[in-house]
Amino acid sequence: MNSEEIKDHIYSMGKKARAAALKLSQLTEVEKASILRAMARAVREATPEILAANTKDIEAGEAKGLTGAMLDRLRLDANRVDAIAGGIEQVADLPDPVGEELEKIDRPNGIHITKARVPIGVIGIIYESRPNVTSDAAVLCLKSGNATILRGGSEAIHSNRAIAKALQEGGEPAGLPDGAIQLIPFTDRESVQVLAGMDKYLDLIIPRGGKGLIETVVSLARMPVIKHYDGICHAFVDTAADQDLAVAIIDDGKTQKPSVCNALETVLVHKDIAEEFLPKLEQRLKVRGVEIRADEHALKILSDAKAATDEDWVTEYLDLIIAVKVVDSIQAAIEHINEYSSQHSEVIITRDDVAANQFLTGVDSACVYHNVSTRFSDGEEYGFGAEIGISTDKLHARGPMGLKELTSYQYRVTGDGQIKDKARQDALLSTQEA
Amino acid sequence: MNSEEIKDHIYSMGKKARAAALKLSQLTEVEKASILRAMARAVREATPEILAANTKDIEAGEAKGLTGAMLDRLRLDANRVDAIAGGIEQVADLPDPVGEELEKIDRPNGIHITKARVPIGVIGIIYESRPNVTSDAAVLCLKSGNATILRGGSEAIHSNRAIAKALQEGGEPAGLPDGAIQLIPFTDRESVQVLAGMDKYLDLIIPRGGKGLIETVVSLARMPVIKHYDGICHAFVDTAADQDLAVAIIDDGKTQKPSVCNALETVLVHKDIAEEFLPKLEQRLKVRGVEIRADEHALKILSDAKAATDEDWVTEYLDLIIAVKVVDSIQAAIEHINEYSSQHSEVIITRDDVAANQFLTGVDSACVYHNVSTRFSDGEEYGFGAEIGISTDKLHARGPMGLKELTSYQYRVTGDGQIKDKARQDALLSTQEA
Repeated sequence: MNSEEIKDHIYSMGKKARAAALKLSQLTEVEKASILRAMARAVREATPEILAANTKDIEAGEAKGLTGAMLDRLRLDANRVDAIAGGIEQVADLPDPVGEELEKIDRPNGIHITKARVPIGVIGIIYESRPNVTSDAAVLCLKSGNATILRGGSEAIHSNRAIAKALQEGGEPAGLPDGAIQLIPFTDRESVQVLAGMDKYLDLIIPRGGKGLIETVVSLARMPVIKHYDGICHAFVDTAADQDLAVAIIDDGKTQKPSVCNALETVLVHKDIAEEFLPKLEQRLKVRGVEIRADEHALKILSDAKAATDEDWVTEYLDLIIAVKVVDSIQAAIEHINEYSSQHSEVIITRDDVAANQFLTGVDSACVYHNVSTRFSDGEEYGFGAEIGISTDKLHARGPMGLKELTSYQYRVTGDGQIKDKARQDALLSTQEA
Repeated sequence: MNSEEIKDHIYSMGKKARAAALKLSQLTEVEKASILRAMARAVREATPEILAANTKDIEAGEAKGLTGAMLDRLRLDANRVDAIAGGIEQVADLPDPVGEELEKIDRPNGIHITKARVPIGVIGIIYESRPNVTSDAAVLCLKSGNATILRGGSEAIHSNRAIAKALQEGGEPAGLPDGAIQLIPFTDRESVQVLAGMDKYLDLIIPRGGKGLIETVVSLARMPVIKHYDGICHAFVDTAADQDLAVAIIDDGKTQKPSVCNALETVLVHKDIAEEFLPKLEQRLKVRGVEIRADEHALKILSDAKAATDEDWVTEYLDLIIAVKVVDSIQAAIEHINEYSSQHSEVIITRDDVAANQFLTGVDSACVYHNVSTRFSDGEEYGFGAEIGISTDKLHARGPMGLKELTSYQYRVTGDGQIKDKARQDALLSTQEA
């Protein structure tokens, strides 16, 4: 396809999505749940087609020399397809956020204002290689009354098409509006550019993926973007820390699943306990096979660490590597975090509630923890039922984004003829009568 | 100044603002109120300097041939300066939104999650000729714990500088952090471009002004933008309308203050009552000196209207002109509004609650009214105490933006050592003990 054709195609999808969004906003909780259940059934029934499509992607990926980790993210099997369907059923069971009355205001002049939750409209989701996102994102948007335009990565195109087809063909007989879930069927880079410029039809764009993708979307987008940047998460071990607990939290944060965004990347240790604590930490991390990159001060205490460079403070390793730095005070820890973190998740380990409070209110990140592993930064762990991702932005949605964060609101005002200036009209009417 | 110097200057302002924002976020309600009161006093005391500066702007404006309306927006007198100071005192008295606990979640694993309201950080405000915005915007941002970088229009530069100086010099001895309120001291067009690209230091940008300014900001901005577009507001007169009430609401919406964004621009009338209602409406609007631009159907009924063109449905007249169209159904009215309105404010006039509900839930605008003038779309009328403007966006803030809409939130999580996978660590420890 040439540029003009790509643009025309995506704009016609946008127009369809806008029409679908209006219909979606009027669906009841029961109607949406029954559509979602039909979609889940259709995904289960389409397992053979989805796996066949996935095999094509895997073969193409192997031929292209994708790494094992990338192929693993891409690979589906019967259990994973079943988990996708199960995820849809879970979302069907969540309470419908749309229509919720967020506030009621009665004004002295007799007008009644209701702040009501409404869908956002049309949401564009740009993602990379995991094919389950096709379903997860579309289904959360549908439950919250939004239409979606999905643009997945080229590696997963066959799988994404097969999943989107099952969702559409399963949903439409059950009342899914035409155009409510659309997948861009090609993966030209230009499609990202077109989507980002289509503010006429797209109310929000959510890029999920690497820094490069997000940067591209941010620089092109004319509509709001909710970024899901990487997680450069910190643990600060205070003088008053329970040191065994600190070791446990850092071990969990670094080694339990190093490839995720809420894993730890940097440990800051108060200078007064560094000599006592760092050897304990090193011992545990050694067993776990973690490489330590240490600042000058920590390097003197640790027996087997490499020297950290400036690059280490801004790197999301996603691997068994951790940066360690000794700081002079809790304030110095807060300043380091506010300078280098990605504003995702940070933890203080301390028995001192005053220090904890200083940390929790001083650190400018989405999720701040006291004596709890950062690995809990997750919509399900927060009780949201499901999440579309973790926002590292500060506007509209911050931290785990659940169904509520996929909605907007509207003020509905009722009265019995209130006007701004009644005296002015009364004066006019009395002149006319006179 | 050359481009490089402008950029350096604005970036150094950004860096200062970021440092100030951290301090502002820690100020208590009492501290902020006392700073605001000191600023109000300083504005009153600086009245002679502010008026002298304003005279320079007015003289320059007259020399440049600004219209009377533009000069009026620009002009200050002792009363207007006093009103600016009074506005600051009003904001000082409003409750502090920062720190409010929006939600508390206790999870089965014993962690406690508090969703706490926090400031956004650094907010850029780009505005045009009204000098009072310098104070209004800075003060609302300060109350909500945010630092501001202000970029006013060139017409008001002397007035803006004098007001900003009074705010800073009044506030600083009372504890206003250095850099909390900064005005870009020059008005080169490039400064907008630099601000819009400075996502390192700016968390949000709010453009207030004409479509051209907003379009420029939207296309350049790398950070979130909350747009305040114009208001193309509609009234729909249903078959079941109280027709006198409809005339009153349309008169109020169009003629009480035609230059504002919540004034009416278009009237839609149900075909079944058009012949009865339109002459009544015309009679009233004639007295008010309003020109009517009518569609083909309405044109046949009205005695003194011009034919509307397609342009009329998308024009914010801000003047004594109104567009009138006859529609076949309430659904047709909703569709017209969703196609042509700026999603600001719309009203249905009807005695039929089912029709009203269909309209209120079907129209995708920030503020929807039943039997109430659209002129009430305003932060003070909604009880917010003050507003920074009316957002026509759907993300983060929609409709009147008060102090709460100038905040973000943060999840603060406390516990006693919860980790994601305790069994894994227990297994490790038991091996080591064995």
